[in-house]
Amino acid sequence: MSSFDLKSLEEILEKYISNDEHLKEVKRLLYGRSEDNKIELSEEATKLASKHGFEIQGYRFTAKAECTRLPRIVRIGAIQNSIVLPTSSPVDTQREAIWQKVQVMIKAAALANVNVICLQEAWTMPFAFCTREKFPWCEFAEEAANGPTTKMLQEWAKAFNMVIISPILERDTNHSDTIWNTAVIISNRGRYLGKHRKNHIPRVGDFNESTYYMEGNTGHPVFETDFGRIGVNICYGRHHPQNWMMFGVNGAEIVFNPSATVGSLSEPLWPIEARNAAIANSYFTVAINRVGSEEFPNKFTSGDGNDPHTIFGPFYGSSYITAPDGSRTPSLSRDQDGLVIAEIDLNLCRQVKDFWGFPMTQRLDLYANALQHATKLDFKPQLIKE
Amino acid sequence: MSSFDLKSLEEILEKYISNDEHLKEVKRLLYGRSEDNKIELSEEATKLASKHGFEIQGYRFTAKAECTRLPRIVRIGAIQNSIVLPTSSPVDTQREAIWQKVQVMIKAAALANVNVICLQEAWTMPFAFCTREKFPWCEFAEEAANGPTTKMLQEWAKAFNMVIISPILERDTNHSDTIWNTAVIISNRGRYLGKHRKNHIPRVGDFNESTYYMEGNTGHPVFETDFGRIGVNICYGRHHPQNWMMFGVNGAEIVFNPSATVGSLSEPLWPIEARNAAIANSYFTVAINRVGSEEFPNKFTSGDGNDPHTIFGPFYGSSYITAPDGSRTPSLSRDQDGLVIAEIDLNLCRQVKDFWGFPMTQRLDLYANALQHATKLDFKPQLIKE
Repeated sequence: MSSFDLKSLEEILEKYISNDEHLKEVKRLLYGRSEDNKIELSEEATKLASKHGFEIQGYRFTAKAECTRLPRIVRIGAIQNSIVLPTSSPVDTQREAIWQKVQVMIKAAALANVNVICLQEAWTMPFAFCTREKFPWCEFAEEAANGPTTKMLQEWAKAFNMVIISPILERDTNHSDTIWNTAVIISNRGRYLGKHRKNHIPRVGDFNESTYYMEGNTGHPVFETDFGRIGVNICYGRHHPQNWMMFGVNGAEIVFNPSATVGSLSEPLWPIEARNAAIANSYFTVAINRVGSEEFPNKFTSGDGNDPHTIFGPFYGSSYITAPDGSRTPSLSRDQDGLVIAEIDLNLCRQVKDFWGFPMTQRLDLYANALQHATKLDFKPQLIKE
Repeated sequence: MSSFDLKSLEEILEKYISNDEHLKEVKRLLYGRSEDNKIELSEEATKLASKHGFEIQGYRFTAKAECTRLPRIVRIGAIQNSIVLPTSSPVDTQREAIWQKVQVMIKAAALANVNVICLQEAWTMPFAFCTREKFPWCEFAEEAANGPTTKMLQEWAKAFNMVIISPILERDTNHSDTIWNTAVIISNRGRYLGKHRKNHIPRVGDFNESTYYMEGNTGHPVFETDFGRIGVNICYGRHHPQNWMMFGVNGAEIVFNPSATVGSLSEPLWPIEARNAAIANSYFTVAINRVGSEEFPNKFTSGDGNDPHTIFGPFYGSSYITAPDGSRTPSLSRDQDGLVIAEIDLNLCRQVKDFWGFPMTQRLDLYANALQHATKLDFKPQLIKE
């Protein structure tokens, strides 16, 4: 079996583990919950998904009832998708084809009463950074506040009363046409709320992203929306726990991790990192990865001694959502477009903080001082020799 | 099936997944390696384990050959065990019985050519903090540098040419008889190398540890030994990624996480946290948890509304080792004494750093400044409103 005959880990577990009690126990160990927390989604939503050939899954995470606060129940969602047209097509038609595909998926999310949706990293384009070519790929970059993608999404957000997080390649015309890897946050009233620029940039294998843009300069903003306080940790930032931590320090209740990553590189790390962040910071995390393989016009190398080639991928999808208590949904498939939805009670964040006490015991002052020390040029590590 | 009929997750996967290729793929997704990396251990070691009824498992993690450095191959090990005598026995006889049991296990490690061994948290005693009673449990505390346990281990370390990490309850007689949760590091020449005190103290459920000792004041020391640079992140510190990070910043190649934790509380988090730390910091991690249930003379409550009771547990064992590339060993069993061993090439740490670039892209200055800011009393989170 080549690894891409496997639709998901869940599929294989369900297939083989015939004893229900054993399967429950495996799920408890792997996902933090032995009971199925699937929810029924509206018939219109599932019909639309079926018609357009994408997966749709919904789950529920509950919290305890409180005396002094009402439940704050919202539905969050994530979309994973392949590109549509060959990468040799004109940039604008490539983008429009992706817009059209994703618009249907956002519509399905709306029909499933989703309040906040996040798209995958650089969702309007192929993930062309493997090529190290600047032309034509930089043409996909657009302004965060006034670019065509943002303008279009503002209409959708208003129409669907939905917060939309749109990770794009940003062109900063006010600063020498600089390019950034950016997430734009649009409110459910269709307003541009702000943006976050990717803080940590990879330099590994096909991910030549440091060739295209620099480390973000927007800090760790958290966006207070009608449906919770939201942060965005873009792709490679998920490998950096301190990045996740600062969104928590700034009050995030949900942190989305729009990504693009391939199986040979990171697949065994994928279920670990966003989930660990949810645990450590007592917030919800949403890990999103694209699917499919992308073929480029010119050959490129991967920095691994292998022959030049034109195909990048496969991206393994497997998008999933984790609750602050560390329990998680199964993954979307590894190879199919999909929409994963969780109905969550935001009150769970503070309840888990009170229970586990992680934020209270963080000792941020210890680390503020330790890091100040560590960043000095004459830093001597705390190394003890015999 | 009660959850404790399940010996380990691995057992159930091996039992059900009859197709070898599918099992390999599941292992790749769950453990980061599809091939078995088990090693044969010496016959004397396995015989001793079998005679004394504890599990023994060995695995190998390799690195690439380098031109300018020789391989640095060492064997590291971790011991998980239950206590021996009833907790109503005299303190000194309880301790001696544990010493005797663990001495045999250390002997087995020596016969398996282990160079560095780490014992579980507070290994000389029952994990009595659930009771909130000070007497007689504080009597288990002893001086780090000159206590009876350290003195005895110094002999063993010398005899076996083995670095021993000994997590104990520490009595600091020089500072008002203060009690700490401490790991003592003893060199393979039998010298007391130093100690580390647990940085983050839990206040959750039966883990009333803040009743007994305070947050550690020893920073994040890394001990340079003949067999690698070693840090110790004690128990609850594993929930704090910034704690793991500082051991990495100080140069650790292996970080041990001696723990004591129970199934109902943390079991689904267990495979996530130490493994995430290995990934984020490009070092080896060793997660160690005790096994068995412990019965105390007086009833106590667990802060969960349930009836007073006398039994704490079961601790679920499941000790495992993760490499810097995120691949890991299977777990020891959930209910049996055991010794897990990994033969590792320490060169893998720097190789993974070079490949993934995580330390290089950490942006510690960004976080030093952000945390200085966050710890001010008048801190305003970076919160953006519509």
